[in-house]
Amino acid sequence: MSGDADRRHPVDGDIGQQEMAPSKKGAVLVDGIILNGPTTDAKAGEKFVEEACRLIMDEVVRKATDIHEKVCEWQSPEQLKQLLDLEMRDTGEPQDRLLELCQDVIRYSVKTNHPRFFNQLYAGLDYYSLVARFITEALNPSVYTYEVSPVFLLVEEAVLKKMIEFIGWKEGDGIFNPGGSVSNMYAMNLARYKYCPNIKEKGLSGLPRFVVFTSAEGAAPFLVCATSGTTVLGAFDPLDEIADICERHGLWLHVDASWGGSALLSRKHRKLLHGIHRADSVAWNPHKMLMAGIQCCALLVKDHSDLLKKCYSANASYLFQQDKFYDVSYDTGDKSIQCSRRPDAFKFWMIWKALGTLGLEERVNRALALSRYLVDEIKKREGFKLLMEPEYANICFWYIPPSLREMEEGPEFWAKLNLVAPAIKERMMKKGSLMLGYQPHRGKVNFFRQVVISPQVRREDMDFLLDEIDLLGRDM
Amino acid sequence: MSGDADRRHPVDGDIGQQEMAPSKKGAVLVDGIILNGPTTDAKAGEKFVEEACRLIMDEVVRKATDIHEKVCEWQSPEQLKQLLDLEMRDTGEPQDRLLELCQDVIRYSVKTNHPRFFNQLYAGLDYYSLVARFITEALNPSVYTYEVSPVFLLVEEAVLKKMIEFIGWKEGDGIFNPGGSVSNMYAMNLARYKYCPNIKEKGLSGLPRFVVFTSAEGAAPFLVCATSGTTVLGAFDPLDEIADICERHGLWLHVDASWGGSALLSRKHRKLLHGIHRADSVAWNPHKMLMAGIQCCALLVKDHSDLLKKCYSANASYLFQQDKFYDVSYDTGDKSIQCSRRPDAFKFWMIWKALGTLGLEERVNRALALSRYLVDEIKKREGFKLLMEPEYANICFWYIPPSLREMEEGPEFWAKLNLVAPAIKERMMKKGSLMLGYQPHRGKVNFFRQVVISPQVRREDMDFLLDEIDLLGRDM
Repeated sequence: MSGDADRRHPVDGDIGQQEMAPSKKGAVLVDGIILNGPTTDAKAGEKFVEEACRLIMDEVVRKATDIHEKVCEWQSPEQLKQLLDLEMRDTGEPQDRLLELCQDVIRYSVKTNHPRFFNQLYAGLDYYSLVARFITEALNPSVYTYEVSPVFLLVEEAVLKKMIEFIGWKEGDGIFNPGGSVSNMYAMNLARYKYCPNIKEKGLSGLPRFVVFTSAEGAAPFLVCATSGTTVLGAFDPLDEIADICERHGLWLHVDASWGGSALLSRKHRKLLHGIHRADSVAWNPHKMLMAGIQCCALLVKDHSDLLKKCYSANASYLFQQDKFYDVSYDTGDKSIQCSRRPDAFKFWMIWKALGTLGLEERVNRALALSRYLVDEIKKREGFKLLMEPEYANICFWYIPPSLREMEEGPEFWAKLNLVAPAIKERMMKKGSLMLGYQPHRGKVNFFRQVVISPQVRREDMDFLLDEIDLLGRDM
Repeated sequence: MSGDADRRHPVDGDIGQQEMAPSKKGAVLVDGIILNGPTTDAKAGEKFVEEACRLIMDEVVRKATDIHEKVCEWQSPEQLKQLLDLEMRDTGEPQDRLLELCQDVIRYSVKTNHPRFFNQLYAGLDYYSLVARFITEALNPSVYTYEVSPVFLLVEEAVLKKMIEFIGWKEGDGIFNPGGSVSNMYAMNLARYKYCPNIKEKGLSGLPRFVVFTSAEGAAPFLVCATSGTTVLGAFDPLDEIADICERHGLWLHVDASWGGSALLSRKHRKLLHGIHRADSVAWNPHKMLMAGIQCCALLVKDHSDLLKKCYSANASYLFQQDKFYDVSYDTGDKSIQCSRRPDAFKFWMIWKALGTLGLEERVNRALALSRYLVDEIKKREGFKLLMEPEYANICFWYIPPSLREMEEGPEFWAKLNLVAPAIKERMMKKGSLMLGYQPHRGKVNFFRQVVISPQVRREDMDFLLDEIDLLGRDM
């Protein structure tokens, strides 16, 4: 590229020093700072990255996914502050000390990759997503203009197109967001913008009072938000019936399918979302059931008149110049309220490439079959009680310890049962043997919510889960 | 942990197969799906990750940062679609094909790590941040509750505390967000919430019309937003004077220091933000000048009455149970509009640990000294014209090709000069020799904006930049 001097200075052994003293030969000084040569010691830096990669392979990719290891190494906040050297000081630490710190960070972090981590709506390790994530971290792109993110913009376009196809729209638009909540916020903004396109100029104050959902109180209904796969129960709204009402009244139908959207990939289970093609917008997070890694969340919009851009465009002159030498319609960043945005679509694309549509379908089917198995086991076992028949991968159940099994299901029973799940959770976390969530919900006292996602999970882990809860709770 | 069977099945050479057929011995079937054993081939997956890590080390960490390599490998969207195999198919691709795809993704991506990438407010490669990013990608945490993110919540707390110290507040609160725009949105919400604390129950419709900035039109002013380091010019508002006005009128003062905040780490340059301790909230993005990697953006709030939580809390029962066995004040996720949130503070923490406060200061000082050098060179060279004396690391200038040098600075001159930067930009991208931004701004025709950030950048690169622009534009 040029006849410049070598970029790397020789390193004299000291890898404890983080940035090098630049060469003083023919030095140019400004404010007492030598400007010749880089101050980064590339060789030492590369060595550090290589050593850290080995640590990550050993401690996270291998060890943290091993069923014989703990899911978590519980420490209270006070203890953990003692164990970790959190303080940031005036001078830096040498690289061997930094590697020790990395090891501590990994040791005391919850192993969400572990086959017995069932605590959230994400779990497990997908090797393809992980590679995609390493690549994007190393390339450090921001997805707003084609000139700085050519590949990732085209990948996002390809992924959105495919997701739109699975929703059943002929055309559409979309964008990846940092989370389903942000996607839902976008959908509300879009619906409101469509309802009053001059809102960006006039502001909110001149407008009627808006309501979400229909209402008869003189306010202006503009949006119905349905859910495909609720967080706790995994319940699905009847989209077709809701779409009928929305059509009749000209309302925007948004479907929060952050959790349930992935069922669209399964020919067997996509009926859970029957009617989704009639929605105006859909939030769908492949980082949950499809394991694309946090975060990977799309908002998909049926409209193809560039509504996202009309609603959000800020026309930043330093990014979205119109006199560029290429087709600036590829500068899709102006569809987002963010400026910097991560190429989250790439992770999903990589998994899709690796597994194919059929492989993704298999994952969904297997997770739901394992859920089915667990439900049947819960029904068979004494002391376990299903909250309801699950529609999806959320299995909600109570564990009733022997001391409560003969008790009448009155106020005292429920008050006592309410204490059981938190107490078992404490024991399982301190033991580190598994993690699953609990919560009260709509008048029901604390119950466990088990979620199966990862293809690392086996039937044996379902048996273990029930055995372990019984073991931890039978003396209560 | 348990007496379970080995988690890994033997692999018989075929690494082209992405998920294994599970063992049929003693199989349990549900819906025709065998539930015994994992379906993930861990050995093949690990091999793939290891090979990809080698590729990343070679192609990104080493090659993409080499000054002798191109900054970008320009292809038009149409060409790039031909070159990349973007389509997602029914069946998956074998691992060697996936590695080829990864190589293509890297080849055609812009090398933001390259010492001659000056196009945005981020650049360069920080090895410590990269390691932190690899660790978080591998651990795949979401930062909302202490139970799933113990380490990263404490790290975030430590980093926020340190940033608050540098702003000059005695106490405060804060949160990391996906981008400065989101931080600014939070600040507006907080100011509005403080002004009318019943907004969450009553909604917007009963409230007076709000304005940002002071105003005399009967609307209710509630917020002044000042900027420390504008995106194009790198200009700083006089915070102390603005704070006087805000104090007098009881207005919330928010400072968008997304870009300029990092100057706080330099004893020499922090005077640019004189008065920032009087702000009510500050947005500060360590992913820009401090190279923490996209994204790493904090909103810092002076209030310490838990305003963030009061304003944003949704009390999700499945995350923020109050009957947990540990101090739930560490479950800070309810301060965010997001549910899943990435541990971005960790990247900044790692850099701070590695370089120390003094090392970070040195980076800021060196970037600004290099900027100073470039300004002086621009003044010396024929055909280069500064737009204004820079306050920070944004050097805005025109290149005036020989054919325009004798022309009077009238409408024709400016119309012709307006075409120069886009044309040179096209040539530099097609050549791949460097990247810097251009834009028109406030009545000024297209000018270049050069931003120096990375410690990989040398004085020689500043000279190269001016030589190269002259080389590319001298025939215009």
